[in-house]
Amino acid sequence: MPSSFGTTLRVTVFGQSHSPAIGCVVEGLPAGFSVDQDALARFMARRSPGANRWSTPRREADAVQILSGLNPQGATCGAPLSCVIANTNTRSSDYDELRRVPRPGHADFTAQAKWHGAQDVAGGGHFSGRLTAPLCAAGGIALQVLEARGVLIGAHLAEVAGIADEPFDDGSGSGQQLARQLASLRDGRDFPVLDDDAGARMRAAIDAAREDKDSVGGIVECAATGMPAGVGSPLFDGIESAIARIAFGVPAVKGIEFGAGFSAARMRGSQNNDPYGMDEGGNPLPLKNDAGGNLGGITTGAPVIFRLAFKPTPSIGREQDSVDLEQGTPAKLSVRGRHDPCIAPRAVPVAEAVMALALLDSWLSFPPDSL
Amino acid sequence: MPSSFGTTLRVTVFGQSHSPAIGCVVEGLPAGFSVDQDALARFMARRSPGANRWSTPRREADAVQILSGLNPQGATCGAPLSCVIANTNTRSSDYDELRRVPRPGHADFTAQAKWHGAQDVAGGGHFSGRLTAPLCAAGGIALQVLEARGVLIGAHLAEVAGIADEPFDDGSGSGQQLARQLASLRDGRDFPVLDDDAGARMRAAIDAAREDKDSVGGIVECAATGMPAGVGSPLFDGIESAIARIAFGVPAVKGIEFGAGFSAARMRGSQNNDPYGMDEGGNPLPLKNDAGGNLGGITTGAPVIFRLAFKPTPSIGREQDSVDLEQGTPAKLSVRGRHDPCIAPRAVPVAEAVMALALLDSWLSFPPDSL
Amino acid sequence: MPSSFGTTLRVTVFGQSHSPAIGCVVEGLPAGFSVDQDALARFMARRSPGANRWSTPRREADAVQILSGLNPQGATCGAPLSCVIANTNTRSSDYDELRRVPRPGHADFTAQAKWHGAQDVAGGGHFSGRLTAPLCAAGGIALQVLEARGVLIGAHLAEVAGIADEPFDDGSGSGQQLARQLASLRDGRDFPVLDDDAGARMRAAIDAAREDKDSVGGIVECAATGMPAGVGSPLFDGIESAIARIAFGVPAVKGIEFGAGFSAARMRGSQNNDPYGMDEGGNPLPLKNDAGGNLGGITTGAPVIFRLAFKPTPSIGREQDSVDLEQGTPAKLSVRGRHDPCIAPRAVPVAEAVMALALLDSWLSFPPDSL
Amino acid sequence: MPSSFGTTLRVTVFGQSHSPAIGCVVEGLPAGFSVDQDALARFMARRSPGANRWSTPRREADAVQILSGLNPQGATCGAPLSCVIANTNTRSSDYDELRRVPRPGHADFTAQAKWHGAQDVAGGGHFSGRLTAPLCAAGGIALQVLEARGVLIGAHLAEVAGIADEPFDDGSGSGQQLARQLASLRDGRDFPVLDDDAGARMRAAIDAAREDKDSVGGIVECAATGMPAGVGSPLFDGIESAIARIAFGVPAVKGIEFGAGFSAARMRGSQNNDPYGMDEGGNPLPLKNDAGGNLGGITTGAPVIFRLAFKPTPSIGREQDSVDLEQGTPAKLSVRGRHDPCIAPRAVPVAEAVMALALLDSWLSFPPDSL
Repeated sequence: MPSSFGTTLRVTVFGQSHSPAIGCVVEGLPAGFSVDQDALARFMARRSPGANRWSTPRREADAVQILSGLNPQGATCGAPLSCVIANTNTRSSDYDELRRVPRPGHADFTAQAKWHGAQDVAGGGHFSGRLTAPLCAAGGIALQVLEARGVLIGAHLAEVAGIADEPFDDGSGSGQQLARQLASLRDGRDFPVLDDDAGARMRAAIDAAREDKDSVGGIVECAATGMPAGVGSPLFDGIESAIARIAFGVPAVKGIEFGAGFSAARMRGSQNNDPYGMDEGGNPLPLKNDAGGNLGGITTGAPVIFRLAFKPTPSIGREQDSVDLEQGTPAKLSVRGRHDPCIAPRAVPVAEAVMALALLDSWLSFPPDSL
Repeated sequence: MPSSFGTTLRVTVFGQSHSPAIGCVVEGLPAGFSVDQDALARFMARRSPGANRWSTPRREADAVQILSGLNPQGATCGAPLSCVIANTNTRSSDYDELRRVPRPGHADFTAQAKWHGAQDVAGGGHFSGRLTAPLCAAGGIALQVLEARGVLIGAHLAEVAGIADEPFDDGSGSGQQLARQLASLRDGRDFPVLDDDAGARMRAAIDAAREDKDSVGGIVECAATGMPAGVGSPLFDGIESAIARIAFGVPAVKGIEFGAGFSAARMRGSQNNDPYGMDEGGNPLPLKNDAGGNLGGITTGAPVIFRLAFKPTPSIGREQDSVDLEQGTPAKLSVRGRHDPCIAPRAVPVAEAVMALALLDSWLSFPPDSL
Repeated sequence: MPSSFGTTLRVTVFGQSHSPAIGCVVEGLPAGFSVDQDALARFMARRSPGANRWSTPRREADAVQILSGLNPQGATCGAPLSCVIANTNTRSSDYDELRRVPRPGHADFTAQAKWHGAQDVAGGGHFSGRLTAPLCAAGGIALQVLEARGVLIGAHLAEVAGIADEPFDDGSGSGQQLARQLASLRDGRDFPVLDDDAGARMRAAIDAAREDKDSVGGIVECAATGMPAGVGSPLFDGIESAIARIAFGVPAVKGIEFGAGFSAARMRGSQNNDPYGMDEGGNPLPLKNDAGGNLGGITTGAPVIFRLAFKPTPSIGREQDSVDLEQGTPAKLSVRGRHDPCIAPRAVPVAEAVMALALLDSWLSFPPDSL
Repeated sequence: MPSSFGTTLRVTVFGQSHSPAIGCVVEGLPAGFSVDQDALARFMARRSPGANRWSTPRREADAVQILSGLNPQGATCGAPLSCVIANTNTRSSDYDELRRVPRPGHADFTAQAKWHGAQDVAGGGHFSGRLTAPLCAAGGIALQVLEARGVLIGAHLAEVAGIADEPFDDGSGSGQQLARQLASLRDGRDFPVLDDDAGARMRAAIDAAREDKDSVGGIVECAATGMPAGVGSPLFDGIESAIARIAFGVPAVKGIEFGAGFSAARMRGSQNNDPYGMDEGGNPLPLKNDAGGNLGGITTGAPVIFRLAFKPTPSIGREQDSVDLEQGTPAKLSVRGRHDPCIAPRAVPVAEAVMALALLDSWLSFPPDSL
């Protein structure tokens, strides 16, 4: 089921970049939860294009219309929640030749290898980054459910074009430092970094890439605080498997790491192991959090933290080498249209959606046994 | 289904470190394939403990007994293939106090948070690295099926304790350089590196860690050549999602990246995009392979390449801080027993098994449309 | 995933009787298939209410709007096909007290036991027979795909109020008798029976029940010709399991049988076994078809035939005994609104949709091995 | 996943009639449950062959060996429970020609159409009724878990060769009559009927069929008391869908009905609807139980009751018409070996296993919302 994921909380995403609409179905939401549709719209706005100069000029309201799953009082009713987002700004003619001359770094070539011409190439079709909008709609609701359970999720640009933001604290101990960081990201700032100076340099790098008809990549770091210990499952439905499977469904993601991640591979065990201690209330907890909040696929009670590597936007104005698949000859290609020279800023809420959907599904599917 | 994965090729892994046996069930293997049980035994031997001084002294034959799924001629018969591996060398008394004083870096604490004492703590129970044996049994068969289809898979220690091996060539162009590398890894060498000098330094670092009652981590790089273009699926069942979901079910994995991976995040689009050209036979192909062999979750025809970050073995002889969960007090703990001071060497065939199972399932579940 | 089914062809149904819309998502359709939307509309019309006097006066166009999954040429493009049907005629006030005083034979009571008030009771919510409309939308497309592969599916009212229609021939031998029966059901008749006289008596029985403010049940028989031998799977994903799982998701179904079904339980083996012979082309085939076209969950090449028992419409105008769940007292209830006094006639295309979805998914998921 | 079923409680069955062993893996059992292995052995004995003259002379202990999933105290530990049953009495030579001349009523022909010779034909391979042994092992454990939660499950031969037993009371009202019936089936009787006289006539009919080298069919009725209201799910994962999907995985099942079943199709709504009333404790309940304990796929609190139609054993000594698939000619066939002339008696515990696995999975996957 390529466009679905989840066990109890099951999300199915549908739509193409230029189809009449895109949307999702979410099965398994707890019944009786009042969805805050205004908060959902604000969350969607963080991902939507056209909000600022770092983003594509394609403007769409990305208004989420909920078609089912709520009772007349606006609360979830036990039936699948479905929603659609209209595609209002479609210019299919921009894309007519993509089936013939595939864009490097896009799925044009692989879609042709798979479907031999039946695929919808306009705007990238089902592969479009636009499909992260319904993922955010589902994730935005999951975020609300988790928040009601005491879980806060936030993400920032850990890196753009090699320029690093202040990293997240690992959330161990009192967790106040990470809490402050997450709070500051919610203060209405229009660029999701902790260090404003780093943010200014990132924006300059993005502008420079645009001027060069080029693009840059970035790394998004995401944290969730407040998860109880004991959520998840050993082996292939663990917290990391659940997050990673969804994350690699987000276009342009090329890597993921949890906690110390790749740098753990360079540590000794005595450094990497998180020792246990007691908190002020006498409860056991890890004294640091290189594990990224889970061991053996099950939450430790410390914040769950991951980083996603986003490659630079493959759509660039520069001339590139490609092939003419019909004529079997080399061909030059310059991607027309306007695209984000860096997708990482708009991917920040997407990372939050991924975290929320994976954690809520894990909680519903694999909770701690009741005592 | 925490201990299962796959769509058409579905693998269910069972067993605990010290249960009577461990094993797996593999549904969906193509019928009529003759399993080479000797080759399977040789593959298992690469993962098995005790083969050399870098490994735990716990010796077990890891003989795979196939209980079902073959016809009298030894070929797959369409029914689920099941196999078991006896646990012959169990010393449960080593582990009696783990439920009370959890080992840092292990799942003892999270298992207690989830199951409140019902879990089998001996040897790590269902979380044990020993569960990679049945994963390798399933993967070893998948490797054979793929090899018959022209797909070769190999892995090496890209890094141990910060010491780097020669990296895999990206396999673009004629692919001869990567083919040579994969062939050299199959020449019977007992330490899976391309650069023998780097290998010697890695072994010295592992020995040094053992002497310090400590451990080191590593990075395993895995490549698959010969996959046709067009295998896989957009979004959440793409090649990367399939591999990542299984990979994070392997104990100690903390990160995964494909192709250029995290370094892609520091590139410009003009660098990272893989341009297309024509091979000698007039077929289009990517001229380089920073994508790691897939775009939009679908194979490009270039080799699929990933890297896995393994944390250092959490079981170390050094005294560590933990807690006594019964008494609610801090406690000191030194892990007794003998353990690999670096698990990465034995994880090399595990990475190959992960690759094989994910690719074969993708091929069976999401093949290119027939023309 | 309560509102989804299927392995490769996966259908997710959403909506409540009075939500803004109902609809479905269909993953896994073969790419490149041109959907005939006019034929789909005609199929939907057979299920839609208000077409005649045997049906509820609630009239809705049941126009299927396809939101995604087609390329600009109107063919399937490999991405999930999604469609919605607007709910235009909703009168929620009819249903306000159902949460308090549950209707016998409906899911009002069980929904309350499950969701404690959060459920959407209007019109039966997610339990409404109206949810068979998106099921028919998905099934109508599957019927077209199967027809292009040489499979014809038809159903009729085998029984209404105890009055029997001419039964389907079992399709063995030349299959001409069953082919004639299926053809006659496609001749535009407005009441799906083979024996017009029996049909007239059925309609009289339905009218009589309506006059009595009561309802009657019926049995729908469905056949599929043209399936090749070797489709399906042993055990729990066999043809019968696949059909039955979907069929019991259709409201009011209380039984299913295949081939000789319950009467097979009263036969001897020498009667019930279908002997094999050779057809004119020298191919083996069963000489009769008490097996209903499958053995061991795998098609024999003979027609697949099942019968579904539909209980009488639970909504009746007669006064019934119920309880007031708020006050904890007995209560009388008469169901207001207009309802079909027999749902079996409108269930005939629903049975065809169930057959089509189960067979197409089985064919895509569990085809005969390629030679 | 043809040999698996279930959502939270997931069962995978493996083995062929003459493979070294058969077995199953059960994921998702609640942790901390002490399995009573003696009770499990007694349950298995009810299904095992050779216990009496109504059964095949093939005698096997059917001893269940649990390989994993228990902690040292014998309680479930959160990891998958796996078990194997050795195949000790195999005579493959009996079956050598089945690939060439398929037995009517068996899956020999369809297996050949699917796998073209790779299938394991010995003893029916993966299609053998012997695969109900691991299903009973899984179900026997589920029965114990349910019994600890207050649910009792029992089944009887409602009909053999057209001879009817006393039917189950529908369990409404006090439920004492059904409770008495279930208790009497547990009193050690060797033939599972309520009416001993009917049982004697059934046995005579079975003996007569054996003497005629023929076989007879039967109907098994199964009831579960004590399920709370609110378990299950609308649409395709409802109670009836869950039971039916598993039931049709049992060899020889050709029909299933719930509550009034097919006879409901001949009732009026005023007859079939179950009115609600209050029990002595002031709780609402259905006053009769034609619904078979569920409405809209969700339990009502009344007993869940179904009936399964078993066709007569297809293996009969009489000469039958078949074909020689190699030579493409008609052929005569007489099934050698000894087989049950009626499988229904041994199917009684299998029906209980089906009920238990479906209900426990529904309860774990789709419980009533917590208040």
